[in-house]
Amino acid sequence: MANIGFIGLGNMGGPMAANLIKAGHSVSVFDLSKAAVATLVTVGATAAQSAKEAVTGAQFVISMLPAGAHVEGLYLSGDDPLFDHLAEDALVIDSSTIDAKTAQKVAAVAAQRDINFIDAPVSGGVGGAVAGTLSFMVGASEQQFANAKPILDVMGKNIFHAGVQGSGQIAKACNNMLLAILMTGTSEALNMGVKNGLDPKVLSEIMRLSSGGNWALELYNPFPGVMPNAPASNDYQGGFQTDLMFKDLGLAMELSQLSASPTPMGSQARALFNMHKVKGNGGLDFSSVIQQYQDQD
Amino acid sequence: MANIGFIGLGNMGGPMAANLIKAGHSVSVFDLSKAAVATLVTVGATAAQSAKEAVTGAQFVISMLPAGAHVEGLYLSGDDPLFDHLAEDALVIDSSTIDAKTAQKVAAVAAQRDINFIDAPVSGGVGGAVAGTLSFMVGASEQQFANAKPILDVMGKNIFHAGVQGSGQIAKACNNMLLAILMTGTSEALNMGVKNGLDPKVLSEIMRLSSGGNWALELYNPFPGVMPNAPASNDYQGGFQTDLMFKDLGLAMELSQLSASPTPMGSQARALFNMHKVKGNGGLDFSSVIQQYQDQD
Amino acid sequence: MANIGFIGLGNMGGPMAANLIKAGHSVSVFDLSKAAVATLVTVGATAAQSAKEAVTGAQFVISMLPAGAHVEGLYLSGDDPLFDHLAEDALVIDSSTIDAKTAQKVAAVAAQRDINFIDAPVSGGVGGAVAGTLSFMVGASEQQFANAKPILDVMGKNIFHAGVQGSGQIAKACNNMLLAILMTGTSEALNMGVKNGLDPKVLSEIMRLSSGGNWALELYNPFPGVMPNAPASNDYQGGFQTDLMFKDLGLAMELSQLSASPTPMGSQARALFNMHKVKGNGGLDFSSVIQQYQDQD
Amino acid sequence: MANIGFIGLGNMGGPMAANLIKAGHSVSVFDLSKAAVATLVTVGATAAQSAKEAVTGAQFVISMLPAGAHVEGLYLSGDDPLFDHLAEDALVIDSSTIDAKTAQKVAAVAAQRDINFIDAPVSGGVGGAVAGTLSFMVGASEQQFANAKPILDVMGKNIFHAGVQGSGQIAKACNNMLLAILMTGTSEALNMGVKNGLDPKVLSEIMRLSSGGNWALELYNPFPGVMPNAPASNDYQGGFQTDLMFKDLGLAMELSQLSASPTPMGSQARALFNMHKVKGNGGLDFSSVIQQYQDQD
Repeated sequence: MANIGFIGLGNMGGPMAANLIKAGHSVSVFDLSKAAVATLVTVGATAAQSAKEAVTGAQFVISMLPAGAHVEGLYLSGDDPLFDHLAEDALVIDSSTIDAKTAQKVAAVAAQRDINFIDAPVSGGVGGAVAGTLSFMVGASEQQFANAKPILDVMGKNIFHAGVQGSGQIAKACNNMLLAILMTGTSEALNMGVKNGLDPKVLSEIMRLSSGGNWALELYNPFPGVMPNAPASNDYQGGFQTDLMFKDLGLAMELSQLSASPTPMGSQARALFNMHKVKGNGGLDFSSVIQQYQDQD
Repeated sequence: MANIGFIGLGNMGGPMAANLIKAGHSVSVFDLSKAAVATLVTVGATAAQSAKEAVTGAQFVISMLPAGAHVEGLYLSGDDPLFDHLAEDALVIDSSTIDAKTAQKVAAVAAQRDINFIDAPVSGGVGGAVAGTLSFMVGASEQQFANAKPILDVMGKNIFHAGVQGSGQIAKACNNMLLAILMTGTSEALNMGVKNGLDPKVLSEIMRLSSGGNWALELYNPFPGVMPNAPASNDYQGGFQTDLMFKDLGLAMELSQLSASPTPMGSQARALFNMHKVKGNGGLDFSSVIQQYQDQD
Repeated sequence: MANIGFIGLGNMGGPMAANLIKAGHSVSVFDLSKAAVATLVTVGATAAQSAKEAVTGAQFVISMLPAGAHVEGLYLSGDDPLFDHLAEDALVIDSSTIDAKTAQKVAAVAAQRDINFIDAPVSGGVGGAVAGTLSFMVGASEQQFANAKPILDVMGKNIFHAGVQGSGQIAKACNNMLLAILMTGTSEALNMGVKNGLDPKVLSEIMRLSSGGNWALELYNPFPGVMPNAPASNDYQGGFQTDLMFKDLGLAMELSQLSASPTPMGSQARALFNMHKVKGNGGLDFSSVIQQYQDQD
Repeated sequence: MANIGFIGLGNMGGPMAANLIKAGHSVSVFDLSKAAVATLVTVGATAAQSAKEAVTGAQFVISMLPAGAHVEGLYLSGDDPLFDHLAEDALVIDSSTIDAKTAQKVAAVAAQRDINFIDAPVSGGVGGAVAGTLSFMVGASEQQFANAKPILDVMGKNIFHAGVQGSGQIAKACNNMLLAILMTGTSEALNMGVKNGLDPKVLSEIMRLSSGGNWALELYNPFPGVMPNAPASNDYQGGFQTDLMFKDLGLAMELSQLSASPTPMGSQARALFNMHKVKGNGGLDFSSVIQQYQDQD
């Protein structure tokens, strides 16, 4: 069993840390929210008073933060950068979803200082974090990936080695852009079919088994009533919020711009989620974007 | 075994008729191309001198024509409309991919005259036509669908009952629009990842197993070399041509316009296939649209 | 002064016919609405009991109908096609906005029969029709254009000779697609600037005088309060309805499809007007599309 | 006459500084390129050995740099930040086109330290810089704007006061996004009309005088041969490069993302310029984007 420092105990980080504890690891946790720390203590975590304290002596450091600026601030440029306080041979796993450029920048500094820093953003949502079935997309060397895998296995089901440092963020940006395209496209096709008289369940099934088949039709149908357990059948509560998809699409657009990779479809999807968001739907599950297509009652 | 009149023996219609013959049906065939008729005769078809002759006495009439104008001309408004020459209780199965409006118009006339006319467009391409593994999307009553199914089973694998007359065309337009979205979206995500250093096989596998999963990543990867048997690995030869996808997207746009169903993603995909087509790629498999994203060598 | 038969007395046709009467021409009018005919009679028109009666003996025939099917029905394929009843040397001016394909088809039949048929769709809205300041985009031979011009001058200000038959419809489709792009683009730029703290009047003025300058910023600002007389400052009443712009964009898309002319921007604009329309705004002036961008109150 | 420090002597900055000298001002110049400095010295500038030396004692400091990072590095965070070396009451005019966020950040620091820092990005290209006919979009207080105006008048023709600090960058991002929309939209409409048989000059003139009228049709027609002096008639040499438009659209997208302002049309335009760029056209004038629409020869 390992000593793990865990920083960032939000909706995702909290249950991820809890799963590590459940698996028998010693986890020292820190978050700016004392309530979040307290919750983890009740399931067996050790409360740290600072990020520095959380990582002291840790073999693994895991961070789960909102954006690149936080990650850079934590490790490199804040008041007391963690890179100055890591145990020798510690492996730092940043599971935050951030821009690839910052991930690469922090990794480059780490490499200069012989620190093991890898990016391992997740997908699977809060449900996956609780169930320990997240997907991890990892940017790391072969050795680092091998070292991280047993720890990631505790929190996830699919652990992908995407490539060198930064590749985890790149893979996630690509995947989530594609997801946004699938969801809007599926919404659009379903809406057109239904508006022309087709039954949403019948059309969903036809496309699922034909060349229109995709993840949304398999597991996350945006049309209310087609899948009882999908957010669409629960007033678009829970799931993956529109605001978060909009954030992820911003990361994809930044990657597109920096690498001059054309993204006509991803850009279109971003515009649709943006239009959905400004109408007050940022807090709804992202599959609610189908409402942008539907006739107003 | 049934007497079948088959009209339209192109790349799709030819092998479809051949499969009916192989299954033991008596098939009388007609096409404006004598060569096409002759080819079918060599595998056991009876050559008809006219469409009228082909349908005389047939229990099933199957047509496979390029566009709505041909279908309307054949059955309703040509020199010698077939609706005047059908056997009593004949079931007419139009497998052409045409606009829903024409399908509904012809079906409405049929209904007035107590003629059984159903729409049953296919997907699966020439390969599926030859192998007898097409998908049929059928617009018909329950009874008509039940009557048609044994015949369709000979030519296809998945026989879907989409709804009432016209629903087959609507379902196909929705599905193929979604397919165009999936293919462009997948191309775009793969190109961005690869341009940022990821391996196309690795990224394809990550997205296939994640929320970006879709038919293109399962069976029809647009990136050369990822799937040995996909058109992408064979210089985009064979498969489903860009020109045909562009035609299908035109049908989807017409449906969108007539029903005022918003199609921002489908419209975007149509523009991309159009741009690809005007650069001289209309004859390549539609997955070659990824070239619109790639850096010129 | 000329004998003119005028068919189609809607919001546009009515005031156009009235201007011809005012200029001293003898105008025989027909419309399916008896009220519309009656209104024109009060300003000096002769009521015809049928389209045929309206055109009997007329030197000029002008039609103003909703769509291609009506035009084709009136002249070619209806119960009593007008092409059978025209005076020798009559000049037929179709000012309906219809698809170019139908305009070309009707013109081709006319040419075979030595009938002068030209397309002359208008822009300028009801206001322009009343004021006699419409723009006409004319598809005609040089001679036909010269013959039509004195009549068109009565109803319009700018009379453009776009080219041969059908060119009027093509020019209008191109212009109105571009207008839709200008209006959505201007809305988008203004919204982004204002959301970031700029004054809409100041930003409008800067862009108007810079490389963003366009017709919308000159005459039809979509932001409420910037131009007192624009529909935007009058709750988007009057002007050019969203439904009509959506129709025109449908014609542009059909032209794009038939000629395989890529229209990524026009397609995008069509999607935006469609999304605006399904939210119940079809009856508002088309500049209200800016509401699709704005935060919900 | 004023003492002016000028930093950044590229294609734009060089002629701008030259115009200040021509008007009688004393200009001390600095650039990393010694050749650029030497060129300015030949027209009367004083060569500075460092940015610090250039601004020492200057009443006005003008910078013209490629991106936000350079501006922030120069004034705030580099080895020897200029904010430590300004004369009392100096007015700093940053004419670089950078992201609004950085402009606001630098301005905020300036405000804390009682330094006058304003953003004044330009449009008008190299031609405008040489001719002294640039447009300036200025983010400044009323007093700062009044102080800057006599200096800006030397280099430009239209000097706009867009609002408080950062507003110049915001206005420019909005305007150039709209310009990209106008240019792609105009290209698209012209291509469709010409492909359907219209004369490009005739269609251009019709749309210019109708509701499709815009800056591109007035001054910068993208179709070769319509305007003899436009880049389109000169193999798309000179003018405003595709690469620069792509950069500006990146700034607009960043602004869109940070403020959640929907930009479906601007995003579409960015995708088109990106696709144009990856085909090797980054160095051509941006109106060459029309080639993306045209049939390959």
